[in-house]
Amino acid sequence: MAYIKTEEGVPGIRSLALFRPETGKHLYDLVQVLLRGESPLSEGERELIAAYVSHLNNCMFCRNSHAAAARCLYGEEESIVDDVLKDMQHSGVSDKMKALLNISARVQILGKEVSSTDIAAAKTLGAGDREIHDTVLIAATFCMFNRYVDGLATLTPTNPAAYEEMGKRMTTLGYVLPQQVK
Amino acid sequence: MAYIKTEEGVPGIRSLALFRPETGKHLYDLVQVLLRGESPLSEGERELIAAYVSHLNNCMFCRNSHAAAARCLYGEEESIVDDVLKDMQHSGVSDKMKALLNISARVQILGKEVSSTDIAAAKTLGAGDREIHDTVLIAATFCMFNRYVDGLATLTPTNPAAYEEMGKRMTTLGYVLPQQVK
Repeated sequence: MAYIKTEEGVPGIRSLALFRPETGKHLYDLVQVLLRGESPLSEGERELIAAYVSHLNNCMFCRNSHAAAARCLYGEEESIVDDVLKDMQHSGVSDKMKALLNISARVQILGKEVSSTDIAAAKTLGAGDREIHDTVLIAATFCMFNRYVDGLATLTPTNPAAYEEMGKRMTTLGYVLPQQVK
Repeated sequence: MAYIKTEEGVPGIRSLALFRPETGKHLYDLVQVLLRGESPLSEGERELIAAYVSHLNNCMFCRNSHAAAARCLYGEEESIVDDVLKDMQHSGVSDKMKALLNISARVQILGKEVSSTDIAAAKTLGAGDREIHDTVLIAATFCMFNRYVDGLATLTPTNPAAYEEMGKRMTTLGYVLPQQVK
C-alpha cells in the first residue's frame, strides 16, 4: 500500500498525478516533450535510456513500463531492449548509443560523475550537443521519477501484460494526464 | 566550461533553460508550483528541503542558490538554514521538519530507501499526506536538477554575492524562464 492515500488500483506515476494534478501536469508535459518532442535521438533510443536508468535505480514500475514502450518502438529489433538491460556493453546498440548509455549511467550515480572523458568519447562517436543534452536530462528526469514513484511506495503491478498495455498506450497516446484519458 | 555550448556567463539551470527552452519551460513551471504554489509546507521549509538535498548531492549551484532563497524567507531566523546544512539533527528546526528532512535524505539515496518507519515517524509528529508528498517530490526533483546542472558541467559562480542576488530574485519574482526576465 502506498505511503499516502492514492486512488486504489491505479499504479505508479499515474496515482501521483491524480493525487496532485497541479504538479502532475508539468511532469507529464515535461516527459512528453523530452521523449516525444523533436530530438536527434529516436523515440526508441529515448525510451531505452529511460528504461536503463530506471533499471539501475531498481525502479520496477518505470523500468518495466519504459522497456515495454521501447520494445514497441524497436519493433522487429525489440530484443535489443532486454539485451541492454542485461548487459549494455555487450548488447547490439551502436557504439555511439553505448557512449550515451554510459553517460546515463554516470548521471544515475551523480551529476559530477560525468567526466570530460565520457563526453569526449560520445562526441568522437558522432554525438552532438543536443544528443548529449537530451541524454543527461532524460537520465536526470528518471532519477526523479524513480524516486517519486518508489519513495511513496506506489502500486507496482507484477503482471507483465499490464506493462505491455502501458507500453502500447505510451507509444500511441503519449504522456497524457490520467483524467484526460478517461 | 560546460560540456555543451551554452550562453557564456549564464550559470547553472538558467543556461540550460536557454539552451532548450521547450524543456526549460516545464522545469520552471514545475518548480514554481512545487516551491511557490499552495502547500501545507511554508515556502521557507520547501526551499530548505531543496537546499538540503542539493547539499547531500554535492551540487554547489543548487545548494547555494536555494540556501540563499531559504535565508531570505526565514528572515530573522536565517541562521537555521546553515545549521541544517551543517548538522540537521542538531539544528533548531521542529521535530516534524527533522522527520521530513530525514525522508528527503532517504529519497536522495534512492526511492526504495524510504521506509514505512520513516513515514510513520513523520505522521506521528503531525505530517499529513500532502506534506509527505511534497517532501518526496521536492527531494526527487532536486535529485534531477542537481544531476542536470552538474552532469553538463554548467557554470557555478564562486562569489557569494551572486547567490544572494539569485535568492532575492527567487523569492520575489519566483521561477521565471530567463528570457522572460530580460
